[in-house]
Amino acid sequence: MSDRIDVAVIGSGPAGLSAAINAKIRNKSVIVFGYENLSNKLVKAPKINNYLGFYDISGEELKEKFKNHIEAMEIAITKERINAVYAMGEYFTLMVNEKMYEAKTVIIASGMEFTKPLKGEEEFLGRGVGYCATCDAPLYRGKTVTIIGHNREAEEEANYVSELAAKVYYVPMYETNYELNSNIDIIKDKPIEIVGEDMVNKIVLKSTEIDTDGVFVLKDSVSPDQLVPGLEIENGHIKVDRSMKTNIQGCFAAGDCVGIPYQYMKAVGEGQVAALSAVSYISSNHL
Amino acid sequence: MSDRIDVAVIGSGPAGLSAAINAKIRNKSVIVFGYENLSNKLVKAPKINNYLGFYDISGEELKEKFKNHIEAMEIAITKERINAVYAMGEYFTLMVNEKMYEAKTVIIASGMEFTKPLKGEEEFLGRGVGYCATCDAPLYRGKTVTIIGHNREAEEEANYVSELAAKVYYVPMYETNYELNSNIDIIKDKPIEIVGEDMVNKIVLKSTEIDTDGVFVLKDSVSPDQLVPGLEIENGHIKVDRSMKTNIQGCFAAGDCVGIPYQYMKAVGEGQVAALSAVSYISSNHL
Repeated sequence: MSDRIDVAVIGSGPAGLSAAINAKIRNKSVIVFGYENLSNKLVKAPKINNYLGFYDISGEELKEKFKNHIEAMEIAITKERINAVYAMGEYFTLMVNEKMYEAKTVIIASGMEFTKPLKGEEEFLGRGVGYCATCDAPLYRGKTVTIIGHNREAEEEANYVSELAAKVYYVPMYETNYELNSNIDIIKDKPIEIVGEDMVNKIVLKSTEIDTDGVFVLKDSVSPDQLVPGLEIENGHIKVDRSMKTNIQGCFAAGDCVGIPYQYMKAVGEGQVAALSAVSYISSNHL
Repeated sequence: MSDRIDVAVIGSGPAGLSAAINAKIRNKSVIVFGYENLSNKLVKAPKINNYLGFYDISGEELKEKFKNHIEAMEIAITKERINAVYAMGEYFTLMVNEKMYEAKTVIIASGMEFTKPLKGEEEFLGRGVGYCATCDAPLYRGKTVTIIGHNREAEEEANYVSELAAKVYYVPMYETNYELNSNIDIIKDKPIEIVGEDMVNKIVLKSTEIDTDGVFVLKDSVSPDQLVPGLEIENGHIKVDRSMKTNIQGCFAAGDCVGIPYQYMKAVGEGQVAALSAVSYISSNHL
């Protein structure tokens, strides 16, 4: 039980980081599942004038301020991808393909930049489909892997996988100068469906098909209701009350995923409230 | 009509400033009623670790960051004290003793550090009782004025009044080394009631009485329902929905005055949401 985390935060954007620092200040153990660059949305912002205290700052600069803040508080970002979160009553199980975490509370701060699952993606999740290539790469030693990359970070993961796998196909969902090892085949095509029997054996694209043992879909985030079965959604957003409680006991949410306006300060405010609600939930239930 | 302000913000703490910068970014005219030092609560904070982006910062330093931000955006703090806000249908009238402002929307961000009114205070407001001594001092040339000071800023106001009034009594509600002109009498006593007929003529304290022509109660803020007649209060806080709307059309609220937790990021987030709701209210009603 000693390794059951107090507060698991899913998302490393402003809402998630705000939740993390507040939970940590209240002496709770915290894990943050997120990205090296914290938030793609933030980093891409050319100029931000409405984050009180910083005038005329770029998203990249603000990200650095956030990074310095969490590093000073010894909060690390865990880069593993959560496939699913299951409510177990007094705690949650967070599935990371071949591994799992337990947490007393969960704060979802995964933003709105999620992509709809492909046909077959949810069906084969954990049976050849994964969201974290660096985590699961060892399973594909000597095999064929297809990586659907939604962002540039996926390239690094693809390069790592290519050192172990026999063959890597990279299907980029964006345009850039890809920095990929020369043994990776780039397939510019639209993925349609992941197929298989017990395990994945093929991915169908618009104008071709690839025989593959595994498919990694490397996207910014999955939709919250896909992540947490049973989570109540209202008009496309996680339904929360003013204390940031969702319909699932011990599960809180904050930031863009709970509704408009999609704004940084709104997100940090909600992250703070979610963390304090989680802390109070833990103590009032003696968890 | 051209001098009707789009957004009047009452309060210059984190919630009020956040509201102001967001309204201004949306090209709205903004007025902020507040304090030179922005927020007594903030300035007194020895150390703040949970305002994302600033680690290990003092309240005083964070205040300076806020000040730089609003100055860069050419947002000034108006130091006049609002006595009352009246909803007029499509606009609001904000009363400042001998003067008034009109605004299309009002955002209340006045915090929770308000003091209960004295007996007689509301009754004689505008008839010898005021909340801004520097504004109304000229009315008391050659007369006797009593100042009930709840904070050190009140001392400056008292000194100014003492240059015009015949006699100034200062009733401090705090302990310090008062920096008051030598012609001011300091009365260390508990105020009980303001009395008069048409106009104020006396203030009753616990162990004495003072004949006076005017009483200034210089406190951080008045309670929201005293400020805005008809405003719905729930459990001691202004009742708002998630868009920060109050029960009065065009009137929004944010920060400590709408509920716990009393935290800076929660406040700035709510200020932002309140401002965006006010902006959308103005445009959807073609005001």
